[in-house]
Amino acid sequence: MILTVTLNTALDLTYRVPSLRPHASHRVTEVTERPGGKGLNVARVLAALGHEVTVTGFAGGATGHMVRDRLAGTPGLVDALVPVAGSTRRTVAVVDGRTGDTTQLNEPGPLVSPAEWSALQDAYVDLLGSVTAVALCGSLPPGVPVGAYAGLVRSARAAGVPVLLDTSGEPLRRAVAARPDIIKPNADELAELTGAHEPLRATQDARRRGARAVVASLGAEGLLAHTAEGRWRAAPPSRVPGNPTGAGDAAVAGLLSGLVERLPWPDRLTRAVALSTAAVHSPTAGDIDPALYTDLLDRVTVRGETTAA
Amino acid sequence: MILTVTLNTALDLTYRVPSLRPHASHRVTEVTERPGGKGLNVARVLAALGHEVTVTGFAGGATGHMVRDRLAGTPGLVDALVPVAGSTRRTVAVVDGRTGDTTQLNEPGPLVSPAEWSALQDAYVDLLGSVTAVALCGSLPPGVPVGAYAGLVRSARAAGVPVLLDTSGEPLRRAVAARPDIIKPNADELAELTGAHEPLRATQDARRRGARAVVASLGAEGLLAHTAEGRWRAAPPSRVPGNPTGAGDAAVAGLLSGLVERLPWPDRLTRAVALSTAAVHSPTAGDIDPALYTDLLDRVTVRGETTAA
Repeated sequence: MILTVTLNTALDLTYRVPSLRPHASHRVTEVTERPGGKGLNVARVLAALGHEVTVTGFAGGATGHMVRDRLAGTPGLVDALVPVAGSTRRTVAVVDGRTGDTTQLNEPGPLVSPAEWSALQDAYVDLLGSVTAVALCGSLPPGVPVGAYAGLVRSARAAGVPVLLDTSGEPLRRAVAARPDIIKPNADELAELTGAHEPLRATQDARRRGARAVVASLGAEGLLAHTAEGRWRAAPPSRVPGNPTGAGDAAVAGLLSGLVERLPWPDRLTRAVALSTAAVHSPTAGDIDPALYTDLLDRVTVRGETTAA
Repeated sequence: MILTVTLNTALDLTYRVPSLRPHASHRVTEVTERPGGKGLNVARVLAALGHEVTVTGFAGGATGHMVRDRLAGTPGLVDALVPVAGSTRRTVAVVDGRTGDTTQLNEPGPLVSPAEWSALQDAYVDLLGSVTAVALCGSLPPGVPVGAYAGLVRSARAAGVPVLLDTSGEPLRRAVAARPDIIKPNADELAELTGAHEPLRATQDARRRGARAVVASLGAEGLLAHTAEGRWRAAPPSRVPGNPTGAGDAAVAGLLSGLVERLPWPDRLTRAVALSTAAVHSPTAGDIDPALYTDLLDRVTVRGETTAA
């Protein structure tokens, strides 16, 4: 059983409009609605890969009910979300049918009380007793302390459970010092953490700050991994047009499943790139076409990175 | 008891963002959430004026539940919405904090089945037995025939209940021929109905097509009324900055309450303009500041329109 933590779960709405014009009124021609927040997206991909996965984090209000109702229909996924008095946020992705570009609107999320945050930590420690790996994903809702992920990383390490962290800003900075097993920043998040804009230098710097392995997602260029076992670049066969939303979460699912299956790093990276490329190619953000994923597994290139840093 | 009909009810979300930039990601700084659809807005203003009001129309799915939960907390308002299998729509108004401009995104609404449409008509005819006036408001959800309002107008007239209609396009064109007591088009809707862009000529033409009274809302200029008793222009004291969303619904509430209280037309128009001006001035779309409304009642000007048509 794998555990994913999504402190700021969401109901993700995707609105297709013929053309987005600021200050005009738009008839939405197509609405899709699904549970969201990075950890729930990761869990959905893990479940599709055949892993049993438990999700925790916060859910509250009518939107929280909608999220939980939909999770209940996902085979292989166990809902261990912790109730909050506030209402789970919505996110709205407005897709311009003319250009394909997306405009994103994210509600902030519920205000979490100290008692609710304590309840989450207790539930998390209980769950750590029965899982093989944990992913901590996404932003913090209001009220959760900025050092939240640092504490959750320490609890995982105390329990001997490998922990992957995918967040940004100050919560990332603090949690890196608690020595997570893997972090998966994108180029901007990595530069913000380290001050270095050259990815190879930045991944090395992030390891010095405490991360045992750093897997940087570099958009269409794929992944750059800096680990105790070596350094690799993994790239998709060609630039894939599509919607990058959810590609990072698919990569996390690939890394995490590879970890629990004890795959060597190059195989984990191949899986992560194949999953994220298949996610970009999917018409629905975050969905994976299994046939495309399988096809891509043979076409991802991984090469050792030998440049002295 | 007044009845308002909202076939395409909604959960209206208002998102405040610092500045709306297409294709960027936005953190929503403020979220407000309320039942919407024109007829529900009209009902809320009527209830605030002290009238008892029943609302009907369709509600379904999780969003429908959210709408009904919130209506249950409105004193003086009776929920007689008819359940549908599809899900009630959301609308999202994105307010740009820099310019104050609003970008509107409207989901289409549930697909209504023929059986659900029959159930609504039956419920409506039952309700007509115990009400003093009815307002038919807003767009039609998918599946409801374009002649829907024409049928509902005929039923009201058969029951001897005065009926106000506030819709647009083909549903308006068809329903006007069924001889509603009042229609309240805005300038664009009136021009589309009649082909005339001069409001005085257009209101006269709309009466020829079947409307017994036409009250055109002309934005900041106020209202132009063309009735069997006479013609009037009613104007606010000065141009009021603010959010025009909900102003038309407040005007409908003023006209309808004036009708059931048997006020003369100039007093109905004064009330309608004062309410709509107070709604524009409110920070929350559709809310009415009672003190401002009372103050405006003395400052709205109504003058007879004597131009030969």
